[in-house]
Amino acid sequence: MKQLKGIMPPITTPFVNGELAIDKLEFNINKWNKTDLTGYVVMGSNGESVFLTREEKLKLVEATKKFASPDKHIIAGTGSDSIKETISLSNESVARGADFLLILTPSFYKSEMKHEAFIKYFTAVADAVKIPVIIYNVPKFTGVDIEAETVAKLSEHPNIVGIKNSSENVRQNNEFISYTDKGFAVIVGTASMLYSGFTSGAVGGILALANIAPGECMEIQKLIEKGNLKDALTLQNRMIPVNKAVTAKYGVAGLKAAMDMMGYFGGEPRAPLSTINENDRSQLKEILKIASLIE
Amino acid sequence: MKQLKGIMPPITTPFVNGELAIDKLEFNINKWNKTDLTGYVVMGSNGESVFLTREEKLKLVEATKKFASPDKHIIAGTGSDSIKETISLSNESVARGADFLLILTPSFYKSEMKHEAFIKYFTAVADAVKIPVIIYNVPKFTGVDIEAETVAKLSEHPNIVGIKNSSENVRQNNEFISYTDKGFAVIVGTASMLYSGFTSGAVGGILALANIAPGECMEIQKLIEKGNLKDALTLQNRMIPVNKAVTAKYGVAGLKAAMDMMGYFGGEPRAPLSTINENDRSQLKEILKIASLIE
Amino acid sequence: MKQLKGIMPPITTPFVNGELAIDKLEFNINKWNKTDLTGYVVMGSNGESVFLTREEKLKLVEATKKFASPDKHIIAGTGSDSIKETISLSNESVARGADFLLILTPSFYKSEMKHEAFIKYFTAVADAVKIPVIIYNVPKFTGVDIEAETVAKLSEHPNIVGIKNSSENVRQNNEFISYTDKGFAVIVGTASMLYSGFTSGAVGGILALANIAPGECMEIQKLIEKGNLKDALTLQNRMIPVNKAVTAKYGVAGLKAAMDMMGYFGGEPRAPLSTINENDRSQLKEILKIASLIE
Amino acid sequence: MKQLKGIMPPITTPFVNGELAIDKLEFNINKWNKTDLTGYVVMGSNGESVFLTREEKLKLVEATKKFASPDKHIIAGTGSDSIKETISLSNESVARGADFLLILTPSFYKSEMKHEAFIKYFTAVADAVKIPVIIYNVPKFTGVDIEAETVAKLSEHPNIVGIKNSSENVRQNNEFISYTDKGFAVIVGTASMLYSGFTSGAVGGILALANIAPGECMEIQKLIEKGNLKDALTLQNRMIPVNKAVTAKYGVAGLKAAMDMMGYFGGEPRAPLSTINENDRSQLKEILKIASLIE
Repeated sequence: MKQLKGIMPPITTPFVNGELAIDKLEFNINKWNKTDLTGYVVMGSNGESVFLTREEKLKLVEATKKFASPDKHIIAGTGSDSIKETISLSNESVARGADFLLILTPSFYKSEMKHEAFIKYFTAVADAVKIPVIIYNVPKFTGVDIEAETVAKLSEHPNIVGIKNSSENVRQNNEFISYTDKGFAVIVGTASMLYSGFTSGAVGGILALANIAPGECMEIQKLIEKGNLKDALTLQNRMIPVNKAVTAKYGVAGLKAAMDMMGYFGGEPRAPLSTINENDRSQLKEILKIASLIE
Repeated sequence: MKQLKGIMPPITTPFVNGELAIDKLEFNINKWNKTDLTGYVVMGSNGESVFLTREEKLKLVEATKKFASPDKHIIAGTGSDSIKETISLSNESVARGADFLLILTPSFYKSEMKHEAFIKYFTAVADAVKIPVIIYNVPKFTGVDIEAETVAKLSEHPNIVGIKNSSENVRQNNEFISYTDKGFAVIVGTASMLYSGFTSGAVGGILALANIAPGECMEIQKLIEKGNLKDALTLQNRMIPVNKAVTAKYGVAGLKAAMDMMGYFGGEPRAPLSTINENDRSQLKEILKIASLIE
Repeated sequence: MKQLKGIMPPITTPFVNGELAIDKLEFNINKWNKTDLTGYVVMGSNGESVFLTREEKLKLVEATKKFASPDKHIIAGTGSDSIKETISLSNESVARGADFLLILTPSFYKSEMKHEAFIKYFTAVADAVKIPVIIYNVPKFTGVDIEAETVAKLSEHPNIVGIKNSSENVRQNNEFISYTDKGFAVIVGTASMLYSGFTSGAVGGILALANIAPGECMEIQKLIEKGNLKDALTLQNRMIPVNKAVTAKYGVAGLKAAMDMMGYFGGEPRAPLSTINENDRSQLKEILKIASLIE
Repeated sequence: MKQLKGIMPPITTPFVNGELAIDKLEFNINKWNKTDLTGYVVMGSNGESVFLTREEKLKLVEATKKFASPDKHIIAGTGSDSIKETISLSNESVARGADFLLILTPSFYKSEMKHEAFIKYFTAVADAVKIPVIIYNVPKFTGVDIEAETVAKLSEHPNIVGIKNSSENVRQNNEFISYTDKGFAVIVGTASMLYSGFTSGAVGGILALANIAPGECMEIQKLIEKGNLKDALTLQNRMIPVNKAVTAKYGVAGLKAAMDMMGYFGGEPRAPLSTINENDRSQLKEILKIASLIE
């Protein structure tokens, strides 16, 4: 089995006139293929997965697999509240080349999405799919949060191999690591957690920032592995404002604008999201300059 | 065009062994057909819509249309974050007999789901579908809330005819009514708002409680129309604990358990939800007794 | 014992150069004395109570009692997390003429401020003070919310006579009314709840809006008592934007600015609050004009 | 000036029969004096400051100063929403021996407690007091959160020397460090942040856990300073469940119960808080055993 670690961008989905632009995807993947990124997440939050039809999703998995160099993991985000639909979309994604499944916590009935429901949900999905499952915890989008005790229990399932954790709560992330066995992969879901995650035992990062600054993200990990905390922290701190800009501040539209500035194809987000305005674009450019990502 | 008003249950979806049980649906609808309920909402929050596949959803619309007496509106809950998928599922639902579409606010990118995004989203959907659209605001499940200024703007669209508002905030509900024209239907989305809604200009209710106590819900409306506020309020207050039990306290599982106690088919919710335990079941029975709904 | 009902403004505290301006208070109270307002709340949320020293608070109670016409209740906001300090400040306020005590829910240890703690706190306070206690529930400022079951239990205490409820949740407000006996006064704490409160059994209103539009607030109550719901609702709807402006939108600073526009002394809020800027002032004036409160 | 760094317990306030027990305070401080703790925080959140009268607060500062060995900082928690009262209580605390002031963010008017209000508040306080000010950010109790940009601006004030940050958000904590100069002390406010804080540039910890496990807290800091991250992380992970028990899970009452188990005087919290029940006490003892804090 492929080992889950390293830096993996949750790749953006390119649209031209609101429709999937597979050639632009190819262009981006060709650039990322030249790096040491370990994999690509297709249909993650930054992939605007919730705006895609089922057909578009499968087309994306297929295309990503086709363009990715063979050493990259293909991680498909196939989770929804419906267990039945999640299993079905997962199996179709496996057939198109997915290596791992990134399964969002169910979240509609928020007050009932606690330990028992999460155990039921992830067990049912993991039992029914043929490739390893990664739990996806992202409270800012789902409004629910999975507890470490629940993750610990789920980590005993042979087909649940890790968690992508997009919460910035360091206690919770440390609990995910210390409550599970060494083989269970805790992957930080935002670049703001990179330094703290890697110094605490996280093994990878699925990061919006890795779409535009894969080298810097990988460098932070390498510096920490070498024991050079000082330089790792300096680089982390340099990346914080950029990461904030392409996530909390300007969202997917900001990430896509930054991609355009960095030589990737970004383009427009799909409606109802909007592109960022000129003023925000100027500020974003300034932030990228200060971080030495562009000149 | 059919007029949107009166009491409409967001009907539960019957499952036997986790699979759709269309015969049980027929059984329930036959009972409801004997009442003055004005319509049925299929694939609402209480219909566990998020746990259904696309095929199951369409099957449900078709069956509901088939079993409903001709005077009942069929309101199909077809909204999701994806505009494309929403339009597609809506059009398929229209083909199967839907009279109105209940469209949930998009909610995944919470911090960006504000005025502009809602205008874009609902305009695109309402432009593309052939039957009238009802906005569906339910902050407890979506984590987003639509403002009255946005609803006022959307109410100008000829194909957006109302809002189902499941918030218990009375200021907001009054704003929905006073900021829009008389023809725009404000429908309360929870029985806890019935009395306040109807005394303030709301024209209907889409209520979990109407699954089990349609008569009482309609009676509150009638009493208010007759100007008998005192009895309306007494009945409202008698229903408050029951409504709380089948919504906030025990959720869909509680609603289904109450249906079983009241002579409807309730059955089990779909995983990852669980049926309520014996202790909760006893308490629920007691609540129904105190409210004189069962003996 | 004086009966608790009718409209009572939580009076603003006048400052000149950041210091208490008792003469301005006298000016305002003289104006309010000419109306049928039933009482004055001193040291409420709109009184910037949290910015006052103990000495200033007692000076305010004394002055309010002195200037108020004898028929007006003096309601002193004396609650804080400390039971000891609450009792002490309450007794000093009684000595200066307070008729009722408005006691804020304790709130610092939010996760522990539940049923048992509230019962303990309010029982200890009500046992130790000589005048009747009104519970004050204002989740937007305290971050805690008291449940109807708790209020019902507390309403059995002979010295706890009512609740000022500033939540806009109509279910909760109706529960406060229906779970307690007729003698227990449910008082709405915001003008956005006036119409719904009075049609549901609330007996009074402690309202920021009553500082500037006492007549309109009282008129809503009178119209409802006469059974003229239509005109009451029309007036309520006319007041909604004004109320929003002087509460959620512009806060105490906005309320004070509106007072200046309406012929009262408003002045500046105390630091760290700031006066509203010129642009907001223009908008506020426009809102007052549209509501026919100024010309 | 004394340098702000190292581990400092926010000491609990001992009560016997609900009244201050200064002799028990002496007993505890005598034990802590034998350690390398760098200071004592009196009237912090764990000191139940909000339940104390002004007189009790000053008595506590005086006693703490008297019992503390001369090398320990005395940090007095004197902040409240009122600038006037904060300055007054601060000056009285200085007169009784305080070396630093821990000033809570104002929080009552939550929606207005943003950049401008914080700048105004802390500048006014820091200008008027004679000893250095530490900003105290604790969102779980205040419901407000201070942004790094605001802290950066405030750090330019010569009399604002640090921040105690009790948020577990690692991005925010890293921003506090990287947005301010080296001389500005970022102090983590919970033991769950110790490892991440110290590896990122925090210089101290004000920790509930330091009341019962001062040695372990200091050891984590020392191990990190020596570059022994592995053992530091192991110790951190061993402390996580204990820290959770004496903070989020059982609160101040749990911390006091743990103190009793560890040979300190804990005793009862003041009303309206309650002591933990027998079942929780057994679980707490088990947690302390597993962490090897007791046998």
